[in-house]
Amino acid sequence: MREAVIGIDIGGTYTKYGIIDRQGNNLADSKINTDENPDFDVYLKHLSSALAGLLKEVKEEVAVKGIGIGAPNANYYKGTIEYPPNLSWKGIIPVVDKMKAHYPGIPIVITNDANAAAIGEMVYGGARQMKDFIVITLGTGLGSGIVVNGQLVYGHDGFAGELGHVNVKLRGRDCGCGRKGCLETYVSATGIKRTIFRLLAERTEESELRNTSFNELSAITITDLARKGDPIALEAFEYTGRILGAKLADTVAHTSPEAIFLLGGLANARELILDPTQRSLEENLLPIYRNKIKVLLSSLSDVNAAVMGASALAWNELERP
Amino acid sequence: MREAVIGIDIGGTYTKYGIIDRQGNNLADSKINTDENPDFDVYLKHLSSALAGLLKEVKEEVAVKGIGIGAPNANYYKGTIEYPPNLSWKGIIPVVDKMKAHYPGIPIVITNDANAAAIGEMVYGGARQMKDFIVITLGTGLGSGIVVNGQLVYGHDGFAGELGHVNVKLRGRDCGCGRKGCLETYVSATGIKRTIFRLLAERTEESELRNTSFNELSAITITDLARKGDPIALEAFEYTGRILGAKLADTVAHTSPEAIFLLGGLANARELILDPTQRSLEENLLPIYRNKIKVLLSSLSDVNAAVMGASALAWNELERP
Repeated sequence: MREAVIGIDIGGTYTKYGIIDRQGNNLADSKINTDENPDFDVYLKHLSSALAGLLKEVKEEVAVKGIGIGAPNANYYKGTIEYPPNLSWKGIIPVVDKMKAHYPGIPIVITNDANAAAIGEMVYGGARQMKDFIVITLGTGLGSGIVVNGQLVYGHDGFAGELGHVNVKLRGRDCGCGRKGCLETYVSATGIKRTIFRLLAERTEESELRNTSFNELSAITITDLARKGDPIALEAFEYTGRILGAKLADTVAHTSPEAIFLLGGLANARELILDPTQRSLEENLLPIYRNKIKVLLSSLSDVNAAVMGASALAWNELERP
Repeated sequence: MREAVIGIDIGGTYTKYGIIDRQGNNLADSKINTDENPDFDVYLKHLSSALAGLLKEVKEEVAVKGIGIGAPNANYYKGTIEYPPNLSWKGIIPVVDKMKAHYPGIPIVITNDANAAAIGEMVYGGARQMKDFIVITLGTGLGSGIVVNGQLVYGHDGFAGELGHVNVKLRGRDCGCGRKGCLETYVSATGIKRTIFRLLAERTEESELRNTSFNELSAITITDLARKGDPIALEAFEYTGRILGAKLADTVAHTSPEAIFLLGGLANARELILDPTQRSLEENLLPIYRNKIKVLLSSLSDVNAAVMGASALAWNELERP
């Protein structure tokens, strides 16, 4: 019987999950919609039966040793998701307690989805030799996991590492958190769409983007068009990277990381987002930090990075002294 | 014979030093000018003879067990001060190596002056029960020491915690670091002077501040006039606190500290700087952080906080396993 954990990544659109062994082998994975279930209890029933189905798919018999969950606004200390701006559930959701009813006796642990990705990067990915690094996830929003001295930064309340909500402009774009000008309103899959639509309003260049509605447009389309030389798409990537680099320069002044890893939908654009980010970071860094902070793509595959991270969190918890 | 360490705080204007025992008793202290000695070797000779003089002043016989130094742009790992924007020495100064020639066999350790203050706050001050907090020093510049999970954040290169150089405005005030718009150009003893002079240019109100030159003006004068109700001085404190609070909101989104301690020249204005900072912090915080981050004055006396911090660093180093 093979020992494994379940890694679950709760995102704004999908909940992805996988069965992962101690060596990081993905035995099986799948996903369900997150946003179809405004009632958390109903969602949890769907998820549980989906997980039961997945476990049957694995040919070998599997002993589930633990469950790790990555989710927006998750609190590691309390086992909750609290006031998530990008999920349809409201208030404080006691995720771990509610899941324990479905999985009695199995250790269950939750953290911020980006924190989980950072642990995944540390356990299985490009940060295996690093003690100080940051992971930035560029999905529907912008998430971050900060590692200092080999430990994930949770802060006094378990909510550290919300770089998506540092301020870019005091009277900037409306954010899901109720404030204005947060970084993720500029730098995320949603942020770059907003930039595209601002540019379509301001510029007169022809662009295929003029044939697509806001709701139809995706980061994948923007990336494809930028690769074909679309001037609006290219300028949007430049603008996005410039803002990200400038804000990361401030982040470096906090924890001076060895590297910053990008992953998630927008990071799939690779050099289109990496190059302007690295350039802007260097331009904005305090001299003592220049030419020594690496900006890298996550070495975990995008599809599974968050699931791998959630599983790494579970293994990490099982092996705590 | 009483065991003690020497704590040294190298500031832009003064170098303060004291002889401190394990319980935090200050056996003697004094200061010399920092900025009169553009040659570091000459400065070090002056400092050494001043320290010898101070040791003679202590009635009891003292065994010096170690030396702790706090200085701007100091590197804990390398024992250096590197490219300090507010000191007259240039390039990389190998402080620890040079001091070892004067004090053979005695452990000598250096860190950022604000990091030293943070260790002092943790060992002797208001953060004794805290694992996650930040110390902001408001002197000639703005320094910061970040503590996460009970450990000072040094970063991969030893230079973490330079919050004085996060950006407030892209095309803002010239900074000593060569860039523009850094936080310390607005929030520091020098920063509030610059704000006073901007307000004197923009406003028409009568103010005693119109009788003082830029070089004569000090944070003490501004504080005294604000207490007497001077409208320009009051507005300058409001503006300074508003910027500090907004930027600290971004810092909270990084490490989610239990408290933020202010100390240094400008912090002596107490509620004049504390109140607008706390108000602006709350206004700018992401909802999950609201009403739980304390903004406090350092409980270490201002005169000795940095010296106490440097001594705490030395004791800390002596007691490492």
